[in-house]
Amino acid sequence: MAQQARAAQTRQQIVLGAAKLFSRVGYERARLNDIVGETGLTRGAIYFHFQSKDALAKIIVDEFQATSIEAVAAIAATDACGMCQIAMLNREMGRLLGADPVVRAGIRLTVELNSGEAPIPVYLAWIEALKYLVSLGIEQGDVRPGLTPHDAAVFITEAFVGAQILSHAVSGLDDLPERIDRLTGFLLNGLMPDDRLAAHPEIAKARLATAQDARTAAPARRQ
Amino acid sequence: MAQQARAAQTRQQIVLGAAKLFSRVGYERARLNDIVGETGLTRGAIYFHFQSKDALAKIIVDEFQATSIEAVAAIAATDACGMCQIAMLNREMGRLLGADPVVRAGIRLTVELNSGEAPIPVYLAWIEALKYLVSLGIEQGDVRPGLTPHDAAVFITEAFVGAQILSHAVSGLDDLPERIDRLTGFLLNGLMPDDRLAAHPEIAKARLATAQDARTAAPARRQ
Repeated sequence: MAQQARAAQTRQQIVLGAAKLFSRVGYERARLNDIVGETGLTRGAIYFHFQSKDALAKIIVDEFQATSIEAVAAIAATDACGMCQIAMLNREMGRLLGADPVVRAGIRLTVELNSGEAPIPVYLAWIEALKYLVSLGIEQGDVRPGLTPHDAAVFITEAFVGAQILSHAVSGLDDLPERIDRLTGFLLNGLMPDDRLAAHPEIAKARLATAQDARTAAPARRQ
Repeated sequence: MAQQARAAQTRQQIVLGAAKLFSRVGYERARLNDIVGETGLTRGAIYFHFQSKDALAKIIVDEFQATSIEAVAAIAATDACGMCQIAMLNREMGRLLGADPVVRAGIRLTVELNSGEAPIPVYLAWIEALKYLVSLGIEQGDVRPGLTPHDAAVFITEAFVGAQILSHAVSGLDDLPERIDRLTGFLLNGLMPDDRLAAHPEIAKARLATAQDARTAAPARRQ
């Protein structure tokens, strides 16, 4: 049992070291030797757990996707209004990008490893989650007439990815929180009729809430 | 003279071949041998013109930036309203990404080659151009109160970059035109008060215009 726990810990140490390297230099430039340096383990220990750089990258992408799905579920559990949940999701993904090297590497690897001919599973999952939240917003009377959940969901995903890529490229993600808050403001302007936005004070709070805040202090559900 | 013209032609042939390869596989995976294959020239001919892969990448980024600046200038020359010019610029950059391998490689290389600690010149140029157009929109009464030209310009750039990255990753840019038209629709919703957008029929035309169309049939300037 103790040995199993140690193995799991080593495995996670490798994933974390690899994630730090992938997020810094990307898939192509990451060398197994540098992962060795990053983790402080031996080459042998790494090969014992992972057959290749590619296998490591796939694990990181899977963990990133699992973390994203957990974030969506935690925010859904708050029962906040649809537009509130979109604001919280932006904020939470931004927080995770800052705090979790696996998320940071995952978002980079998903794009770098895609062949250009297939949808990216994690983005499909985001788009599905966002479609649901926009539909909820439509039911709640908070979405401009004429917008479809699909179009809105794709646009939100694009804007988030662009903010993250430019933040990474120009500031190593330091300026991501301000980019995300600005983006949420523009998204809500673009999605909501002016009068609904003004009549909706909990949205301002949702923009500043992470999933953790959300669990303890969920914005009131609209009637 | 004939020799100079031939040299210039060879040089451009190399730049084009390298751009096709860079846009397909990115900077790290591009090998000089593959550029040789792409251009049909010899290794020696390529080295005669360019000392390294890095030198080639820099030329492509510079040409991409020059093409972007020309597009901004061509659209400015139409004297269309600020919001119209933003719609035209999105459309034109989308057209160039589809039509010009140097633009396609340039937009990928600018992000890939940036160290994470400095602004990217071509994005600074886009942001300056967009700030000017948003200011023009403010003067023309077409922008929601409370939005600053800087914030709007950064957001437009992020949304464009995200649409392009996801289009590249999932469809090899095939779906870029529809992504850009959707994005322009959301941007205009987000930037313009509802009544101005409705009262502004030439914007719908501008969304569908390229710089070339624009030169021959500029939307009427608002009084």
